[in-house]
Amino acid sequence: MASMTMIPADCSSSTAATTRLLPMSCHKGKALHFSRWVSLSNRLTASSFPSLSFKARASSPLISAKIVIENAAKVIDGKEVAKQIRKEIAVEISRMKDAIGVVPGLAVILVGDRKDSATYVCNKKKACEAVGINSFEVHVPENSTEQELLDSISKFNEDPSVHGILVQLPLPSHMNEEKILNAVGIEKDVDGFHPLNIGRLAMRGREPLFVPCTPKGCIELLHRYGIEIKGKRAVVIGRSNIVGMPAALLLQREDATVTIVHSRTKNPEDIIKQADIVISAVGQANMVRGSWLKPGAVVIDVGINPVEDAESPRGYRLIGDVCYEEAIEVASAVTPVPGGVGPMTIAMLLSNTLSSAKRVHNFR
Amino acid sequence: MASMTMIPADCSSSTAATTRLLPMSCHKGKALHFSRWVSLSNRLTASSFPSLSFKARASSPLISAKIVIENAAKVIDGKEVAKQIRKEIAVEISRMKDAIGVVPGLAVILVGDRKDSATYVCNKKKACEAVGINSFEVHVPENSTEQELLDSISKFNEDPSVHGILVQLPLPSHMNEEKILNAVGIEKDVDGFHPLNIGRLAMRGREPLFVPCTPKGCIELLHRYGIEIKGKRAVVIGRSNIVGMPAALLLQREDATVTIVHSRTKNPEDIIKQADIVISAVGQANMVRGSWLKPGAVVIDVGINPVEDAESPRGYRLIGDVCYEEAIEVASAVTPVPGGVGPMTIAMLLSNTLSSAKRVHNFR
Repeated sequence: MASMTMIPADCSSSTAATTRLLPMSCHKGKALHFSRWVSLSNRLTASSFPSLSFKARASSPLISAKIVIENAAKVIDGKEVAKQIRKEIAVEISRMKDAIGVVPGLAVILVGDRKDSATYVCNKKKACEAVGINSFEVHVPENSTEQELLDSISKFNEDPSVHGILVQLPLPSHMNEEKILNAVGIEKDVDGFHPLNIGRLAMRGREPLFVPCTPKGCIELLHRYGIEIKGKRAVVIGRSNIVGMPAALLLQREDATVTIVHSRTKNPEDIIKQADIVISAVGQANMVRGSWLKPGAVVIDVGINPVEDAESPRGYRLIGDVCYEEAIEVASAVTPVPGGVGPMTIAMLLSNTLSSAKRVHNFR
Repeated sequence: MASMTMIPADCSSSTAATTRLLPMSCHKGKALHFSRWVSLSNRLTASSFPSLSFKARASSPLISAKIVIENAAKVIDGKEVAKQIRKEIAVEISRMKDAIGVVPGLAVILVGDRKDSATYVCNKKKACEAVGINSFEVHVPENSTEQELLDSISKFNEDPSVHGILVQLPLPSHMNEEKILNAVGIEKDVDGFHPLNIGRLAMRGREPLFVPCTPKGCIELLHRYGIEIKGKRAVVIGRSNIVGMPAALLLQREDATVTIVHSRTKNPEDIIKQADIVISAVGQANMVRGSWLKPGAVVIDVGINPVEDAESPRGYRLIGDVCYEEAIEVASAVTPVPGGVGPMTIAMLLSNTLSSAKRVHNFR
């Protein structure tokens, strides 16, 4: 998270009040139940996600409450899916080590003293260790020159035991992000941020060496839950280089009809309402209301926004861009925050690092 | 044009019959009148394009005929705009030659014996000469090896008098298009097809060295006619690497809300009907009907499709993807085919070649 803007967590406070038919505990019950289901089956069928019809929801309050409980959206359990993917990666790494004696290596470069960056780097290191990837960590001091950082990158570019290089963002303001990211060798760009990778992602008939981790995680969730993308209307909210734009390109590659909604879009809710698949990556707590969603839509919520929470020991908790309590009653499937897209990002980073090592050693 | 599928030119034959309120000669009259207007003023204001309202069009037949004539769309005269741009380029080239003695150079490589490719190359050569760009032409025989073609490209990459290299597509089937196009130095990729250029085009805060000529020409037409893009709903029909996809990226860069409609899109007409700006690049004659357009929309038709025409000495004539006779009655502005986007493509190629020479010699 870039900044900590505290806003109240209640969906209803941002615009008009809305009725909530289900108590929070009910969603939690659903989520837990679904977690067990995911751990049993790696890939669920599309029929697991029945669409809601407006007709059922337009009945009298008492009846509709019952129907809503029956039709409440499936919770897409990113934590469980990520766990499963990490398990698969560990198996592959062990197979490669046994066969050709190669262990994938990931270099993570932390620049400066940002606490949140240090936490992210630490989490990535732990995740590497858990699956058997060698992690190389370098801490470049805040007041280093651009050249010193470039030298670090260059060293890893040349090191054959390193298959992926990740420069933790954001960088100190005196450094040029574009210049730094372009210095990462295209063959080791496990973040997928190099314009050459993005260009290949955009072009038909071309294959990027790496796909950016968070959008890749979004699509992987859709795949693992058997949600069809081809021919579907998809709306991506937000057009950042690291999530929104590549997510749109990925959906397009899978034959969705994609619209990107952004800060200059007029009437975003009218466009979002047409979407079978919504990926939101704007960083605005509870921006997307239940009434903005098409009944039966699938919602992938990339936002991680801190909101005041007196009951939490930290004084805040994290919520998504989409008003979860409302979405769960309209959508056919929703990712929670936390526990949705978040855990997938690191899983995809590990997957990209493994792919890189396999590619360079021509191991299948 | 890739293939010559002859279909009847009559819009009404493809689906239901539609009423045409204006005879063809009337459109022509409008187009000519507007041409003179463009030559007087380089940039027209948005108010030149009044929107139609549904209300006016829903009146009785007699009255609506009158209203339609009053509201008939402006014809976007690409031929006239391209002429103006070529004039501006010639002035700049002469200024650069006088100041630093540099003349821009464009190398065009023709591979094989395709008659249409030879015609295109010849037209490009003539256009270069007319504005004062040196053109270098190489004809690589059909049965040459990939390496021979790569050697030609390499020679031009190293030649400082060449500022742009263009390999005329399509290539013979035994050659790998991706490999060939990637061999063109990024600094001389005046076609803008290199994935690094496409990646930069997709990314916010990055600048491509070159933008592909046809989509650049589409946007230039909108600019020169003072049509606002920011905040508008735009639909691009077709997702090719050379037109549809980069056109969508360009519209997005200008803050439009963009949807790409393609062969897998369900109900394309419903989506197209929402667009303030439509760019069509599918190569299907008369595919887009007047009833698919939002009244007041701006239509940029990239399609160039041959249709039977017994009255033409060639036996065919060229028409667009959009049913022109219908579009002109609903839209606020339409590009004709021919004479719309077509002439802009070469003008943008000349513009890219000039920019390249300016950049390498740091001339402003």
